[in-house]
Amino acid sequence: MIVLVTDFGLAGPYLGQVRAVLHDAAPGVPVVDLFADLPAFDPRPASYLLPAYCAAPFPADAVFLCVVDPGVGTDRAPLVIEASGRRFVGPDNGLFEMILRRVPGARAWTISWRPERLSHSFHGRDLFAPVAAALATGAAVPAPGLVETSPGDLLRPDWPDDLAEVVYVDVFGNAMTGLRAQAVDRQAVLVAGGRRIVRAETFGAVSPGEALWYVNSNGLVEVAVNGGRADAVLGLSVGSRFGVVEGGE
Amino acid sequence: MIVLVTDFGLAGPYLGQVRAVLHDAAPGVPVVDLFADLPAFDPRPASYLLPAYCAAPFPADAVFLCVVDPGVGTDRAPLVIEASGRRFVGPDNGLFEMILRRVPGARAWTISWRPERLSHSFHGRDLFAPVAAALATGAAVPAPGLVETSPGDLLRPDWPDDLAEVVYVDVFGNAMTGLRAQAVDRQAVLVAGGRRIVRAETFGAVSPGEALWYVNSNGLVEVAVNGGRADAVLGLSVGSRFGVVEGGE
Amino acid sequence: MIVLVTDFGLAGPYLGQVRAVLHDAAPGVPVVDLFADLPAFDPRPASYLLPAYCAAPFPADAVFLCVVDPGVGTDRAPLVIEASGRRFVGPDNGLFEMILRRVPGARAWTISWRPERLSHSFHGRDLFAPVAAALATGAAVPAPGLVETSPGDLLRPDWPDDLAEVVYVDVFGNAMTGLRAQAVDRQAVLVAGGRRIVRAETFGAVSPGEALWYVNSNGLVEVAVNGGRADAVLGLSVGSRFGVVEGGE
Repeated sequence: MIVLVTDFGLAGPYLGQVRAVLHDAAPGVPVVDLFADLPAFDPRPASYLLPAYCAAPFPADAVFLCVVDPGVGTDRAPLVIEASGRRFVGPDNGLFEMILRRVPGARAWTISWRPERLSHSFHGRDLFAPVAAALATGAAVPAPGLVETSPGDLLRPDWPDDLAEVVYVDVFGNAMTGLRAQAVDRQAVLVAGGRRIVRAETFGAVSPGEALWYVNSNGLVEVAVNGGRADAVLGLSVGSRFGVVEGGE
Repeated sequence: MIVLVTDFGLAGPYLGQVRAVLHDAAPGVPVVDLFADLPAFDPRPASYLLPAYCAAPFPADAVFLCVVDPGVGTDRAPLVIEASGRRFVGPDNGLFEMILRRVPGARAWTISWRPERLSHSFHGRDLFAPVAAALATGAAVPAPGLVETSPGDLLRPDWPDDLAEVVYVDVFGNAMTGLRAQAVDRQAVLVAGGRRIVRAETFGAVSPGEALWYVNSNGLVEVAVNGGRADAVLGLSVGSRFGVVEGGE
Repeated sequence: MIVLVTDFGLAGPYLGQVRAVLHDAAPGVPVVDLFADLPAFDPRPASYLLPAYCAAPFPADAVFLCVVDPGVGTDRAPLVIEASGRRFVGPDNGLFEMILRRVPGARAWTISWRPERLSHSFHGRDLFAPVAAALATGAAVPAPGLVETSPGDLLRPDWPDDLAEVVYVDVFGNAMTGLRAQAVDRQAVLVAGGRRIVRAETFGAVSPGEALWYVNSNGLVEVAVNGGRADAVLGLSVGSRFGVVEGGE
């Protein structure tokens, strides 16, 4: 299975062209959209989403085609990452930071192969998709191929292990953060826009119009409003910061 | 075929995870999105859409995975419905009301099986998708499985047979109602926002900027504006009510 | 492969019904969305997009199901076009103008077949999809079938060969024009909203917040803003006109 994780948008002409390339090079391999609406042009919030979402229920041998690529056309390297059997293909811009940092034994390669026709602005179609298709079918990436590199050389040590910011707002207005459940005490209070947000197990545990936080179905701390949109009620968007008051004081 | 009928949104991470579960448990079964943008958190408008849209051209043996589930994590029951050969999987919250009420011989089961890992907030992935996959492949739902129940016990008698409200606004701004063609006289006038809306066969039969109603391609009464967006021009959104003046007086 | 090129919207109930028809009539044939968000009700901008996007990497024998059809329900003819081996199915309203004009040896047929059940408003599902499925599987369109017609009789000579207007705004706010690379001098300056827009190879070649134009990955002239949305910064939407100052004077 090839899983698409991009900021391309679903409706426009980008994913369809990627799918055509994948179908040609890896016929019969299922292609599934996971995210097509990652925060555009910013690999940092996406880097906190990838370990939480590029996981079960996706198959252990899935290839994740991950493209949030503001540096397309510059000299940032294209990468292949292997972590716990899963493969990831995308640009070297921090997108894979949390996977590289958290998964013991993760390996990394730079892609030295270049296609005959490489546009300036659409490496997802021209470069990353053919490599993902090769990996998914067990084929070798055409020479000059892949060059193994040290994951440590790719790291961005200034990014925190957990990010107390909104990294994604879903269709319901719920705000996912870059905080893993394990990073936040169950009694902690989140503070955003001067409001205190307490943990609750279900939406109904707080009054209508009130905010709550909980551990979402992929293990991230998420903020919602009972019967409303958290983004609108709390004024949240990608990058909005939270205070975290441990123990709730 | 498994057909997805949800309020999950297409672009976010929800449908992709559902698809991964379905692919794992029902490999090779085609999965088609019908609605991913049903009115969120409100099963009532969706209940009027289901009989009109979960029909031909979908195959007679299709499994419809239907999730509009504001009560996820509470004790509302999960259901399987069989109606005219088609199977429906989703929560007991009225979503299947019009199917149960209109299809003679419809049967219903509560799902007593629970997966090993059941999140609080994503039963679409954890509970309903595995059951839909089992039904689509002819496999039994794992024990404790399904318990047959009386459709009559599931009904909500206070909901009307036809609903003179907007139940969905499409991408063009056209407003679908919960009224079936047979429930409205051809000469009837709809009234919304103080405006009288008459029936016409084609958009061009009314002046540009004027509203009309017609029977849409799935048999529901729908309101549009020639050359404009009915939602904007008439101030309509899901839940907006229509007056129906029979005979046009 | 069948490729969907429409203004139907991805999330609503339209594409799913089209896919069900295609699956029934052409089981196993991959179906890929290229555009589901073409400018609604206006075939002219789409006509400049089709030759650029209905091309590689899509297979040389792909069938493109193209529906932007404001005249649905009127007497505009349904068409099949063959151009360089690729087949196109859709309405006779100018949508195929640039393909017919630019591809030597293009052929055209009107579809005289009508399905048993033809809705007033959804020929994409009822008429065009069955024909596309027949073409994709090598089956004959059922009698009365197709009637060959002269491409010249279908042309709209008042439409320019290249269109100095916005024909599509993508998810990033970039504005595609109906100008092919070959139609614009590399030194040319585009003028929109009183601003002069110069060509650059990469976004980084202009200051943040500044506009640039470039040849996009499908060969069309496109306008963007470094680090911003061109549609918002420059006040552009589909139909906005550009001045083109050759030689940059």
